[in-house]
Amino acid sequence: MSTVPMVEVEQATGLVKEVYDDMIATRKMSQIPNFWKTLATHPPTLASTWSEWKAVMGTPGRLDRLTKEMIAVAISTTNRSTYCVNAHTAAAIKAGMDKEMLGELMAVIGFFNKVNRMSDGYQVESDIFPKIE
Amino acid sequence: MSTVPMVEVEQATGLVKEVYDDMIATRKMSQIPNFWKTLATHPPTLASTWSEWKAVMGTPGRLDRLTKEMIAVAISTTNRSTYCVNAHTAAAIKAGMDKEMLGELMAVIGFFNKVNRMSDGYQVESDIFPKIE
Amino acid sequence: MSTVPMVEVEQATGLVKEVYDDMIATRKMSQIPNFWKTLATHPPTLASTWSEWKAVMGTPGRLDRLTKEMIAVAISTTNRSTYCVNAHTAAAIKAGMDKEMLGELMAVIGFFNKVNRMSDGYQVESDIFPKIE
Amino acid sequence: MSTVPMVEVEQATGLVKEVYDDMIATRKMSQIPNFWKTLATHPPTLASTWSEWKAVMGTPGRLDRLTKEMIAVAISTTNRSTYCVNAHTAAAIKAGMDKEMLGELMAVIGFFNKVNRMSDGYQVESDIFPKIE
Amino acid sequence: MSTVPMVEVEQATGLVKEVYDDMIATRKMSQIPNFWKTLATHPPTLASTWSEWKAVMGTPGRLDRLTKEMIAVAISTTNRSTYCVNAHTAAAIKAGMDKEMLGELMAVIGFFNKVNRMSDGYQVESDIFPKIE
Amino acid sequence: MSTVPMVEVEQATGLVKEVYDDMIATRKMSQIPNFWKTLATHPPTLASTWSEWKAVMGTPGRLDRLTKEMIAVAISTTNRSTYCVNAHTAAAIKAGMDKEMLGELMAVIGFFNKVNRMSDGYQVESDIFPKIE
Repeated sequence: MSTVPMVEVEQATGLVKEVYDDMIATRKMSQIPNFWKTLATHPPTLASTWSEWKAVMGTPGRLDRLTKEMIAVAISTTNRSTYCVNAHTAAAIKAGMDKEMLGELMAVIGFFNKVNRMSDGYQVESDIFPKIE
Repeated sequence: MSTVPMVEVEQATGLVKEVYDDMIATRKMSQIPNFWKTLATHPPTLASTWSEWKAVMGTPGRLDRLTKEMIAVAISTTNRSTYCVNAHTAAAIKAGMDKEMLGELMAVIGFFNKVNRMSDGYQVESDIFPKIE
Repeated sequence: MSTVPMVEVEQATGLVKEVYDDMIATRKMSQIPNFWKTLATHPPTLASTWSEWKAVMGTPGRLDRLTKEMIAVAISTTNRSTYCVNAHTAAAIKAGMDKEMLGELMAVIGFFNKVNRMSDGYQVESDIFPKIE
Repeated sequence: MSTVPMVEVEQATGLVKEVYDDMIATRKMSQIPNFWKTLATHPPTLASTWSEWKAVMGTPGRLDRLTKEMIAVAISTTNRSTYCVNAHTAAAIKAGMDKEMLGELMAVIGFFNKVNRMSDGYQVESDIFPKIE
Repeated sequence: MSTVPMVEVEQATGLVKEVYDDMIATRKMSQIPNFWKTLATHPPTLASTWSEWKAVMGTPGRLDRLTKEMIAVAISTTNRSTYCVNAHTAAAIKAGMDKEMLGELMAVIGFFNKVNRMSDGYQVESDIFPKIE
Repeated sequence: MSTVPMVEVEQATGLVKEVYDDMIATRKMSQIPNFWKTLATHPPTLASTWSEWKAVMGTPGRLDRLTKEMIAVAISTTNRSTYCVNAHTAAAIKAGMDKEMLGELMAVIGFFNKVNRMSDGYQVESDIFPKIE
């Protein structure tokens, strides 16, 4: 149970209602996820986080939505954030990830969590690589 | 400086030499990165980690190489693994990531590290989503 | 369920009983939290951890108790430690944190988890700042 | 060295210049820190992160600036983000943190990183606490 | 509930059945743990992870099994990986860890999570130590 | 460089001098490591952390010193704490760890950082295991 009682859709007014309405219209959701209903207890954080979602996840760019959702799973898994692993695995599935792609994703996640620690544990010095110009 | 003296190419024999030769042939590298020259101090770990690299990163699959390298950057950044952030940023650039894509990637990394913590901090309860069948 | 059966108040003897009695007197608690009843399975760790609690959290100093409890929430959230997020959110509320302050705290937690990763991911070099003299 | 060449003040144009000018005016800085000069390589991320800084850190609220900067140090330390530990320790000192307060802060950081892991390692079950109403 | 339906023993065929049979024979298990039944949804990852388990954990070497299982608990606790804390605490108990040893292990885990953060938070510069030759 | 100027041996007085003298006598060190000289800027934290070191690391118990130092390396690596990885790798070497044992240790660290994340990423449900009685 969240630390604070969530703001349910029928309780929303003002800025919170605006965000909920925009969210339902933009994401074609039938209900507001618990994360957003909890953020709504602090309206400015709800509004700015939702703006950031739209800019980062909802705007077409160079990375497609499925790629971004798989990156979200990789980060949430590495941070062991139960809520986000669950939510963004679902979002990646909705964006087209099947069992085979999930298997490859988990293999990549496992491999880099392993080599990250081995390179740190052995105190390996960085190689010199060209940067972006 | 690594905890142990690295095995330089000219010192490699037996299993280590086999791996180095395969690595140079497979990845068309002019030199062996410090990570692998350090793992070579424990040959069975070098050999199994290299096999895993080939299976996970080197084999064509459902995720393309650039996607995997960007996921590698996301994980290594979340783990704050200096060596791997440096190496896999370079690998992603080599695989086609430009400054704009790096910018989008960093925006995704920033956003999920933020919402991961906010959902955990507010103790938000998971929503129910359909799983893969 | 803890890995080991907890030491209940009525089972406490010797050093464990001394700590429990001191804890109830000092913190005016009606019951001993599960964390301490689990540590009691290794009495020297119980005693030294309780001493540390008294020195760090229970002694008036330059930082007030509410500030320390909010810092505890920030750290426990960043470590995603479910038990401590729950316990120290409750302790911060008891020390005066209301919903508005919780909202600001979560905004700070979200912001720094984001910029921590973006500065690491972009491999930004440290600026030079004056130190404490 | 950052992954990408930073945007120096004299190179800034358009949105980047606007942010730099606002930053110098708002924070009374004589120079732009490396973090922001690196974000400037992706202008929308620079602009939105700077807006977030102003809302979260620069706006007077229920938590004062010094408290927020000490929380920033606690989070950055727990994430082991070298750049941010350095920058926000400096910011906390500027906001009034002296050596004694730093000592108390580090004691709190040490204590919670310890008990976070002990409660997770012993698999301690959460106590039931009242939530915010 | 896992993201994907697990492969139960009676559903196993081909490579998955081979691994399950080898696992039951090698580890004298009466049932396959959920982790492996989930990995089985991506057979190559199941097979390579099981090979790695046999090489790293199942092969007699310089570190004995109990030591390795206690290290597994220390790492899983530091990563706050609920599944692995639970599984490897059980494995360490099976390999001979009693309540007293668990107490010492948790004291070590607590101490290093504390000093890790204090050394990072104070930005302490590394001492120079001799390396392995 | 530490955030605060370290207390050098010749500057130590009172409680700090007592701890330094005890440390040199107990650990037969020719010099005080930077970590302790930094903690000395807050004498009560120096004294309590040194007491904890003696209880946890310096007192003979059920786990021997080498095992504890290898666990310290595993934790510090997982936390990516540069100072402690360096210091406790050196301490483990001094306590008898050779290159082969380091290789096995790194293989264990790599393996569990990998499977920790894969079990979390796939949202695997815990198996039921017997606890310590």
